[in-house]
Amino acid sequence: MFDFIKIKEISSGITAPVGFKANGINAGLRKKNLDLGLFYSEKSCICAGVFTKNVIKAAPVIFSSANIKNKIQAVVINSGIANACTGKKGFADTQKTALKTAALLNIKKNNVLVFSTGVIGKYLDMKKITGGLKKLVSILTKKGHENIAKAIMTTDLVKKEAAVEFNIKGKSVKIGAMAKGAGMIAPNMATMLCFITSDITIEKKLLNKIFKDIVNKTFNRITIDGDMSTNDSVVMLCNGLIGNKIITSKDKKEIKVFSANLYYVMDKLAKELVKDGEGVTKFIKIKINSAKSKKDAEKIGFKIANSPLVKTAFYGSDANWGRILGAVGASGVIFNPDKVEIKFGKYSLYKNGSPVKFSEKKLEKYLKQSEVDVYVNLNQGKESCVIYTSDLTEEYIKINAHYRS
Amino acid sequence: MFDFIKIKEISSGITAPVGFKANGINAGLRKKNLDLGLFYSEKSCICAGVFTKNVIKAAPVIFSSANIKNKIQAVVINSGIANACTGKKGFADTQKTALKTAALLNIKKNNVLVFSTGVIGKYLDMKKITGGLKKLVSILTKKGHENIAKAIMTTDLVKKEAAVEFNIKGKSVKIGAMAKGAGMIAPNMATMLCFITSDITIEKKLLNKIFKDIVNKTFNRITIDGDMSTNDSVVMLCNGLIGNKIITSKDKKEIKVFSANLYYVMDKLAKELVKDGEGVTKFIKIKINSAKSKKDAEKIGFKIANSPLVKTAFYGSDANWGRILGAVGASGVIFNPDKVEIKFGKYSLYKNGSPVKFSEKKLEKYLKQSEVDVYVNLNQGKESCVIYTSDLTEEYIKINAHYRS
Repeated sequence: MFDFIKIKEISSGITAPVGFKANGINAGLRKKNLDLGLFYSEKSCICAGVFTKNVIKAAPVIFSSANIKNKIQAVVINSGIANACTGKKGFADTQKTALKTAALLNIKKNNVLVFSTGVIGKYLDMKKITGGLKKLVSILTKKGHENIAKAIMTTDLVKKEAAVEFNIKGKSVKIGAMAKGAGMIAPNMATMLCFITSDITIEKKLLNKIFKDIVNKTFNRITIDGDMSTNDSVVMLCNGLIGNKIITSKDKKEIKVFSANLYYVMDKLAKELVKDGEGVTKFIKIKINSAKSKKDAEKIGFKIANSPLVKTAFYGSDANWGRILGAVGASGVIFNPDKVEIKFGKYSLYKNGSPVKFSEKKLEKYLKQSEVDVYVNLNQGKESCVIYTSDLTEEYIKINAHYRS
Repeated sequence: MFDFIKIKEISSGITAPVGFKANGINAGLRKKNLDLGLFYSEKSCICAGVFTKNVIKAAPVIFSSANIKNKIQAVVINSGIANACTGKKGFADTQKTALKTAALLNIKKNNVLVFSTGVIGKYLDMKKITGGLKKLVSILTKKGHENIAKAIMTTDLVKKEAAVEFNIKGKSVKIGAMAKGAGMIAPNMATMLCFITSDITIEKKLLNKIFKDIVNKTFNRITIDGDMSTNDSVVMLCNGLIGNKIITSKDKKEIKVFSANLYYVMDKLAKELVKDGEGVTKFIKIKINSAKSKKDAEKIGFKIANSPLVKTAFYGSDANWGRILGAVGASGVIFNPDKVEIKFGKYSLYKNGSPVKFSEKKLEKYLKQSEVDVYVNLNQGKESCVIYTSDLTEEYIKINAHYRS
């Protein structure tokens, strides 16, 4: 998308930009794992956010999506309990969390965002939360990005961080980020949290536009099991501490550079979310080409990506293009089947309404790789889209059959 | 639905009604299993049918859905190869199958329906088909219902048959039926075949209406993995040989009795399809109550039924009502979450926007049963619907990761 711009990745996370500190601890919500994280900016930040479209929104989502219009200086996240479907008491708990954080940091409740991830329908243990927060504010540090990235994990196997550095109007700007995902990852961001920080100075309206556009191209293009959770959120905070002249919609060149770097960070984390999906052994990139409309391309892409039959075939390294074509046909999109071509990597398998002969041996070798590309060329329009997904394995079943207990 | 009408089930299948004969053999398309079946009526039949809505339709679906307007006297079905995505050659093979059958039975090609189920994208071995047909016509018999019910199976574990007997205007009418399903079962009938016969005399237009209505209430209300295949078909043939005075739309009482019996047969087979779904250990009935519209109820029901997270939780006998509520929220239907109640059997788990306390022990005992009822009471309208589905297990993954090879 932005191949022409060179990216300089740096080894850090959410605290990479100037003025950000963080840490994560075990506050006792979970047995051993870190379960409470806090990050803080010396200066209050403009903020952009995208939240779950699930009608059932967790208490912290309701709180933070309303609060995001304000300047934000601190973000609290707990894992273990999602604080979703917890009624008035759940919402009061989120407010208390924000109040306590504000008091400890000597800021206002309106300057705090709160996020939760974990089991639905359980209440937070507020004693543990407030105790944990007291400890956290005393150990905020630049090095804390690793601990907070661990504290937001649920069934994730690895922590997910990214950071980049780039030049804007003579200043060296940074973007830092962390994410958690695992199961239930779908468009509209299911059980997925991502936090992004920057020290850039940028107009809030412009930030919002760029941010939402890139969320649509990254986090809203991934799916593991097609489910959409009650807690998903992606938020970005910019404190402006690098002191560049404010970026406005007129700064075309700077917007390009900033967008390319933000895209790089989000795309990297989105891919990592899929690769670390529950039980995932294979990363699958599905490219739908030459569709009549963007919407058609997306419908087809997600129908393929969410088909259990397609996903199990990839798990078995089975060149079952028939299931792909079946999913295309079941997508609800009207098209001419005889024009469709299906390719796995460079291997064409179906064309002109009939199967193409292929070497099972070569294809099996290709499909046994940990990353596989699928192309569906509809040859009936000009629109395209890319979806990232995974295979479906016994391990996914095992993890999810007993998650709550 | 028709609880007020007593049903008399009889031990038979597709050949139960007067004038029908059948058989099934191994024609060499598969290694050991029976793979080719033929059923025949002494007198040509009026016919009703519902076919897959997948844009990609198998050759036999294209052929038979066009032919069904004619009087039908013979139906050929093969398993092993779906003859889908096989282009012109595939369609020619279906036509040859019909021609050969017609020639052997001394009827016309237009009096024959052809169906296939199995792997997509492979051609039929026409030598084996024609050889098999020659043998089949010589062994058509009343007892052949069992063999043909076996010949249409793919990954099904058990054959599925049903037959009933009832009184219409002083005559003893029969309905016989068989079905095959297994994976990929979804609304709009995915990889599902069902054949129903009767010796009743009924107006074609009326038969069509009753038949389609009952398909919508049975086969279009089941889902295993949300996929929809290229070959699904449900057809019914009535030869009128019992000689009752023709049933028309004026015969309210007779329509009720006939509908009740047809519903019983289709509902029974639909349930059996779910229970015999790939890797299924649990049958789940989802009832959505008090929705604003039928469409809302269905959207919510299917979203729950197709959620991998919900299905794996049932597999683990985990009282994870949060995943149900999450799926309701992700269904695309707008509703007030605070009015929703979720029940597993008689146990209320979520009400008035908050969790309800329940005995984990009692609930676990309930969820460990092989059949589980889930109720989602939206309390915001008058419409309801029932969906049948299954759990999702490691066995499903195993079966589907290597089905083609």
